Amino acid sequence: MTNAAPHLYFCSALDKAEDWRSALAAHLPAFKMSVEGDDYDPATVDVALVWTIPDGLLARFSDLKAVLSLGAGVNQIDPSQIPAHVPLARLVDETLTRTMVDYAKAVVYRYHRCLDQFEKASNDARWMFIAPKATSETFVAILGLGQLGRAIAFALRDEGFRVGGWSRSAQPLAGIETFAERHGLTTLVSRADIVINVLPLTRHTTHILCGELFQYFRRGSRLVNIGRGQHLVEDDLLQAISAGILSGATLDVTAVEPLPPSHPFWHHPDILVTPHVAGLSSPTSAAPMVAHNIRRAMTGQVLLNQVDLARGY
Amino acid sequence: MTNAAPHLYFCSALDKAEDWRSALAAHLPAFKMSVEGDDYDPATVDVALVWTIPDGLLARFSDLKAVLSLGAGVNQIDPSQIPAHVPLARLVDETLTRTMVDYAKAVVYRYHRCLDQFEKASNDARWMFIAPKATSETFVAILGLGQLGRAIAFALRDEGFRVGGWSRSAQPLAGIETFAERHGLTTLVSRADIVINVLPLTRHTTHILCGELFQYFRRGSRLVNIGRGQHLVEDDLLQAISAGILSGATLDVTAVEPLPPSHPFWHHPDILVTPHVAGLSSPTSAAPMVAHNIRRAMTGQVLLNQVDLARGY
Repeated sequence: MTNAAPHLYFCSALDKAEDWRSALAAHLPAFKMSVEGDDYDPATVDVALVWTIPDGLLARFSDLKAVLSLGAGVNQIDPSQIPAHVPLARLVDETLTRTMVDYAKAVVYRYHRCLDQFEKASNDARWMFIAPKATSETFVAILGLGQLGRAIAFALRDEGFRVGGWSRSAQPLAGIETFAERHGLTTLVSRADIVINVLPLTRHTTHILCGELFQYFRRGSRLVNIGRGQHLVEDDLLQAISAGILSGATLDVTAVEPLPPSHPFWHHPDILVTPHVAGLSSPTSAAPMVAHNIRRAMTGQVLLNQVDLARGY
Repeated sequence: MTNAAPHLYFCSALDKAEDWRSALAAHLPAFKMSVEGDDYDPATVDVALVWTIPDGLLARFSDLKAVLSLGAGVNQIDPSQIPAHVPLARLVDETLTRTMVDYAKAVVYRYHRCLDQFEKASNDARWMFIAPKATSETFVAILGLGQLGRAIAFALRDEGFRVGGWSRSAQPLAGIETFAERHGLTTLVSRADIVINVLPLTRHTTHILCGELFQYFRRGSRLVNIGRGQHLVEDDLLQAISAGILSGATLDVTAVEPLPPSHPFWHHPDILVTPHVAGLSSPTSAAPMVAHNIRRAMTGQVLLNQVDLARGY
């Protein structure tokens, strides 16, 4: 056990060091935070707070005790950059969870109440009556039942939607039909009106949303991707929509971000692209958990939300 | 008190007599239902179930005991067609309420999570990041705190939105800031990000959504009309959007329905027209209350949800 103030190294192209410094100050009595360009001794860095890891950075931190991801996912982190004895933890943040849940509700209700169809009809000056359905008549499938997937599943269940969920290992969840294994995945998507992907990106889930899986989707169903762009084979989605299997998609993530102006997803009448806005983590609400993990790292304890690098999440 | 089976006369261009006949059969042991073209004695009609009242129809029903509206509103009914001693009741139906609540959630979440802006950006191939807000940062004003307005207000409050409500007479509602009088109306709309109209249509509320009121709206706010088309001065809305006071509107009702193809609301980039689909009543779920009112009419009791014709709701 050490009583020295922890020395943090902060590195992110997306997050502001100052926001994190002041958020953490409310939960850690004393710490030092260095960023690129600062004059500091790499041998004294205890914990790295990172979005991505610049090549070779961590090799210089000879006393590094933990790497804390600034993202809920860790797929943007190259595990080969992390020394074998150093643990990595994901960010779990209630603001991130809440914003993701709200985004899922917004997209699900938009489809459930046919607002996408009315938007199109409105542009065509068509008064096209579609009788409203009860939420219990719309089946939403959640792929991925981690922290975020479970929160979304419970929230939609509480809105009255029928909800099913799929994860690698089976888990019972109150009021949710849960599925596992490949067979469970194809069964679940075959029943769903709306499929929401919130899986972690691993070598097993890369390109899981592909033509082979779309074959099992219910005719006229919709895909919502709030996982990672690499979960989806983009050409296969375009083909599945052309073939009438899927009737629409909402994509908050794409293989290349920002999505290039020439990409066919833009302008597509059945695809809504949102610019990676589904979830936003807040240093203020995430700081208690991060401060907790810094204390755990300093005292050699297992981290909260520690990532199994072999599994990838 | 009469023990005879009630004789109902059914008249609607929107509802199917057969649906109502079978729904009511589950709640009334015996009744007769006549429709236009049937061979029946007008003097034996006890209760009229109507959407609108054809001119002179009720004058032929010399023993009429009640008129039951098939709509939640009664503005489509000409009160001069109803004999002075015959009471009129509105329809209160949980399916109608629930579908209206869901519609309000769909539209509010769409605005709250900027899906309307992303739809436009998507058409323009623009990757335009807008940071998500918490529901507590969006203020929704509900104009009208009757059965439907209260249900919408409570549902949005439960989603975490800030909710304010306005009605003719002040009423305290848990977790809702309530307002009354003209001053309360202008105060409320000046604070709201989204204003939802669900007022009854009366001579006091006709054209209440007009340029004079829009002056008080918060810059960039949105209007949602799920009341009646006649609440809105349509040209004033177009002007308020042009002037940048309102940044958008969702209209489920219009002065003329179906909205004529040449109407400027169609194609308008900031206006979403939905074809009067916000709420749908269901004979199945409404039948218990209607059957109850038929029994009350037969025994001369005051009706549930009886309309004050002088007040108009």
